[in-house]
Amino acid sequence: MNSQTKPLVISVPEPRTLDLIFTPAQKQKLFDSYEVVETAPDRFALLGDAVLARAVYIIGQPPISDQTLAKLASLRCVLNVESNLINNMPYETLFQRGIHVVTTGAVFAEPVAELGLGLALDLFRGITEADIAFQQGRERWGGDGNTSARLLSGADIGIVGFGDLGRALNRLLTGFRAQIKVYDPWLPPSVLVENNVTPASLDAVLTQSDLVFVVAAVTSENQGFLDARCFARMHRGAALILLSRADVVDFPALIDAVESGHIVAASDVFPQEPLAADHKLRQLKGFLRSAHRAGALDIAFKRMGDMVLEDMSLMDRGLPPMRCKRAERETVSRMRSRPVDKN
Amino acid sequence: MNSQTKPLVISVPEPRTLDLIFTPAQKQKLFDSYEVVETAPDRFALLGDAVLARAVYIIGQPPISDQTLAKLASLRCVLNVESNLINNMPYETLFQRGIHVVTTGAVFAEPVAELGLGLALDLFRGITEADIAFQQGRERWGGDGNTSARLLSGADIGIVGFGDLGRALNRLLTGFRAQIKVYDPWLPPSVLVENNVTPASLDAVLTQSDLVFVVAAVTSENQGFLDARCFARMHRGAALILLSRADVVDFPALIDAVESGHIVAASDVFPQEPLAADHKLRQLKGFLRSAHRAGALDIAFKRMGDMVLEDMSLMDRGLPPMRCKRAERETVSRMRSRPVDKN
Amino acid sequence: MNSQTKPLVISVPEPRTLDLIFTPAQKQKLFDSYEVVETAPDRFALLGDAVLARAVYIIGQPPISDQTLAKLASLRCVLNVESNLINNMPYETLFQRGIHVVTTGAVFAEPVAELGLGLALDLFRGITEADIAFQQGRERWGGDGNTSARLLSGADIGIVGFGDLGRALNRLLTGFRAQIKVYDPWLPPSVLVENNVTPASLDAVLTQSDLVFVVAAVTSENQGFLDARCFARMHRGAALILLSRADVVDFPALIDAVESGHIVAASDVFPQEPLAADHKLRQLKGFLRSAHRAGALDIAFKRMGDMVLEDMSLMDRGLPPMRCKRAERETVSRMRSRPVDKN
Amino acid sequence: MNSQTKPLVISVPEPRTLDLIFTPAQKQKLFDSYEVVETAPDRFALLGDAVLARAVYIIGQPPISDQTLAKLASLRCVLNVESNLINNMPYETLFQRGIHVVTTGAVFAEPVAELGLGLALDLFRGITEADIAFQQGRERWGGDGNTSARLLSGADIGIVGFGDLGRALNRLLTGFRAQIKVYDPWLPPSVLVENNVTPASLDAVLTQSDLVFVVAAVTSENQGFLDARCFARMHRGAALILLSRADVVDFPALIDAVESGHIVAASDVFPQEPLAADHKLRQLKGFLRSAHRAGALDIAFKRMGDMVLEDMSLMDRGLPPMRCKRAERETVSRMRSRPVDKN
Repeated sequence: MNSQTKPLVISVPEPRTLDLIFTPAQKQKLFDSYEVVETAPDRFALLGDAVLARAVYIIGQPPISDQTLAKLASLRCVLNVESNLINNMPYETLFQRGIHVVTTGAVFAEPVAELGLGLALDLFRGITEADIAFQQGRERWGGDGNTSARLLSGADIGIVGFGDLGRALNRLLTGFRAQIKVYDPWLPPSVLVENNVTPASLDAVLTQSDLVFVVAAVTSENQGFLDARCFARMHRGAALILLSRADVVDFPALIDAVESGHIVAASDVFPQEPLAADHKLRQLKGFLRSAHRAGALDIAFKRMGDMVLEDMSLMDRGLPPMRCKRAERETVSRMRSRPVDKN
Repeated sequence: MNSQTKPLVISVPEPRTLDLIFTPAQKQKLFDSYEVVETAPDRFALLGDAVLARAVYIIGQPPISDQTLAKLASLRCVLNVESNLINNMPYETLFQRGIHVVTTGAVFAEPVAELGLGLALDLFRGITEADIAFQQGRERWGGDGNTSARLLSGADIGIVGFGDLGRALNRLLTGFRAQIKVYDPWLPPSVLVENNVTPASLDAVLTQSDLVFVVAAVTSENQGFLDARCFARMHRGAALILLSRADVVDFPALIDAVESGHIVAASDVFPQEPLAADHKLRQLKGFLRSAHRAGALDIAFKRMGDMVLEDMSLMDRGLPPMRCKRAERETVSRMRSRPVDKN
Repeated sequence: MNSQTKPLVISVPEPRTLDLIFTPAQKQKLFDSYEVVETAPDRFALLGDAVLARAVYIIGQPPISDQTLAKLASLRCVLNVESNLINNMPYETLFQRGIHVVTTGAVFAEPVAELGLGLALDLFRGITEADIAFQQGRERWGGDGNTSARLLSGADIGIVGFGDLGRALNRLLTGFRAQIKVYDPWLPPSVLVENNVTPASLDAVLTQSDLVFVVAAVTSENQGFLDARCFARMHRGAALILLSRADVVDFPALIDAVESGHIVAASDVFPQEPLAADHKLRQLKGFLRSAHRAGALDIAFKRMGDMVLEDMSLMDRGLPPMRCKRAERETVSRMRSRPVDKN
Repeated sequence: MNSQTKPLVISVPEPRTLDLIFTPAQKQKLFDSYEVVETAPDRFALLGDAVLARAVYIIGQPPISDQTLAKLASLRCVLNVESNLINNMPYETLFQRGIHVVTTGAVFAEPVAELGLGLALDLFRGITEADIAFQQGRERWGGDGNTSARLLSGADIGIVGFGDLGRALNRLLTGFRAQIKVYDPWLPPSVLVENNVTPASLDAVLTQSDLVFVVAAVTSENQGFLDARCFARMHRGAALILLSRADVVDFPALIDAVESGHIVAASDVFPQEPLAADHKLRQLKGFLRSAHRAGALDIAFKRMGDMVLEDMSLMDRGLPPMRCKRAERETVSRMRSRPVDKN
């Protein structure tokens, strides 16, 4: 088809770039199938009325005023590849008009879950600690080096939050014959049962698990909900792995709980990123550190582009998007996430 | 029953101890169900003829001469809890007489497999390296820290050797949708197919895998079979994890392959244990070290005792042992393993 | 809470009844948690304006005019327990207002899939035919009775349609090591891949399968799409199992394909129900009959009530429904299904 | 290699034939790799001493006297393809000499398990009964035809016997989220736990299951152990599926239990085969009949040949057989099975 008949896409993927989220072949496919107008978020509203009127898809989440939205007469979908939802467009009007707002954050579930499992095995077996000791010539051999070693197979595992990431973790744990309890107040229990996990209260997850994965999204309501009282409820020696957002955890309380030897922990997210050079967490024993690296794999970004192409292809044929996750009227305003400032 | 009617067990578990391999409750069960005569390997032959004549089971692998074996008229099974097979008894005569020789090494499969997966995730995601960098204030955040990061999900994985340990690894990998190739010249291909892995030549495993687990037992025939030529056949950047015995690998060649940056590697076993304080492996970049700690978990040793009790219970009822692994006439002399000098 | 503060539910579940879809305990829970106003579809519009204004949920799919909808000022969700979508309400306005329309048809997936697998094993092994022969004293013993017997394990299986039912079938087939190809033009390929099935064209499904499950919903576009040409493309001796709607199949062509011996088949749905007493299908060899019994299990109906309660509970807390399936603007008008006249 | 250097195989597979158990390609491979001497069981002892002295493998289970065995100086393995063990050779001497006796019965596990699952789904959903009613114009539509229908998913399932067949059933049930209890007095509980089933007493299996699969081998000790008392312990309406040997069941008691409506049942084996033309079982309501057809699929017989070739190949290389099942000194005399008179 010639460009007159191709659906028009406005590409404004910042902080991503087209080259980050598309392989060369997929980018070619994007340009072959669509008329692509590239712009920057702060220049989005300045696109001519003719372009805005013909735009069917927006890749990105530029600020959109009521006035600009009124001009976007053909718009079917905002494909947000930043993946958090910033309050910079009139979502209610979008929903009224039946314009989908979808996010591509599911691409991070698999890489984050894999790192999470790696951190868990590291805490259970002291992998990093033992390698450092070995480098320094003070390793302990055989059983002498295993005084606190534990098996994940058959362990009691808790998961806080059962979105894409919780489900990816559950999948990776398939071979471990673990007993998995899940706390997720946003999901009906039967959805958990269907995924072969046991619905549980937060307290049950904390008190009955050898290992707790925290993968809950941060909302306007749950900031710092994992606090000193929570950590005190955990088993002595239990492990906590934080993979979602620093804001769901009271970090000073977490540091205390680890420093006192009550629990061990690992985290991929921190209250400030980068963390201060002299922050106590840097040397904290019983704590394993990852510098917000869990999801940011090239393969994850490239899968964003795949999802975008698949869903635009469905919408081209009059079908709803099925691959990306849809923003919901009920929850869009509750999801409170800082803009991404680093890929 | 009184001790006259209980089957007699000679306990000579060295280098293990009864307290290592039995929980207090299981040890009580042993003494309740059997008449237990405890001795040391070098005193075994000195037990009185009356005791030897009544012994039904031996827990351990003491040296047994032809002469002593002739006195062991009631013997049904040698339950070797060291798990390697030392050439210190007339196996052929044992087999002729229908006396089982069984080993409990399967208890190590699960803990070793878990450490192996942990090492693999560490190499794929740089967990240890990133934590060390973080401690030293030189961590890289987000995608900047992931330049060599890879996913295990969907990866091409090779396994060399498919005994208990290879199978345990395969089970842990269930949730990873990996393509798993296995080289095991001792197994017919259909056994591999039945376990959902693909039978392959050693060369195919080496050249087509992103990650190779080496879990082959050492025999009189395969010492050092993984040599410079093998490592050269691997993908640039591929990972090798050695979990079984150091003797199957040409270590100097492995060090060269890692030092040159061609592959990355991790090992739980070393040519000398403990390793010399100034050994190059201690500082080698791209190499992750574990001081023969993979299997020696308390829970693994305790499972030895469970296995011993389960199999003696079967034999008490006239059934063959089903839980421990039986030594085979064909292979007993090929398995060449040093005595265990450390639990 | 007293009834003044309980959310108001209008119950109009025809053709279901509250007693069909709720256990006594769940029905009690419904009445404890909500103010329930029961009515019949043709009396729905006659409810007083005060009731309509306060109604938060509707259980059922009564006809709703624009005028009545305007009165339903508090309405959040229509919970359609008939499960098909009849064109008797202004869906576009509902969607604009952010009122969810959800269906409970997923409850049928598991029972239908189980019957489907039972029919498949019956066709592959001649279970019904062999039992009839046995009753009549003309059974053939051992291998003589197995000339056309086949294994499902390792078979090439096709699934046409991959909604809840296709996924339930895929789950039941987990233990069969089958190669499963799926044709579903409404789904992006990656969703299929994620479910461990292979995306395929309809022709590939037909020509490369030993067994084809037809579980596609009928739409305004796909009536009779499985026709003589399709059946001719199947393997000689292949099996076709129809579980969704009779309208997707050209029945005279299917009868011809079975009668000629080209394929074997089973169906739970028929062009007329009940089928004429002298219909050729009643005696057709190579054809297995089920009188639209696949889904209508009491346990399935009771799960409808569970889903309704779970989703109303989520919406009570300001969350979106997660358990029932949502009608979509894009597809609601395409789904063309006759009213259910029998539970 | 020329025939002088090929290992000599004596082929005496009766009641099988080489063409039954080998595909043409595999049979060719047999003759290419081995010098094959074909004979009949009653002529086996008449083979010349030179042939007997060179025979490495016997395919079949001909009668072997002590005298003949003494001549079989090179014999390494008897590959019994009838699969039951007849007491027609001096097993003790074979075992003393380290000659393996192996059977190929495992090939039947998969086909028998599939039929078993098909019979179970048939009993749970009335598939055969409903088809017969449909043929006769008295079918009941929808829920009316489902008054006794049940789901297998989530059911409590019992398995009596956990050899190859019990394990194959367990595998097929993977996708059903069933609670599976197993009674097998020959296996230690941990083997069951490792297979994700729950070890249980026979009484627990009978009283707590919706469905019981009987797959226990018949031994000298367990004839008729499933008797009237056992059936009375089952749930009213529970289903029993007999797949192994008729002799483990008291058939008159089973008939009573089904006739009274207490349980429903299906069987592939019968006290007399063929069953008398006027036997009550032929018309018994609530009973589903299969004329010993569960295992006798061509593909199963062909897999026997594959197993034989794989294990001979291992033994050619000095390794023990791994694919066929080995006869055990302890149990060989307990396994009491009639000769197979029909493939």
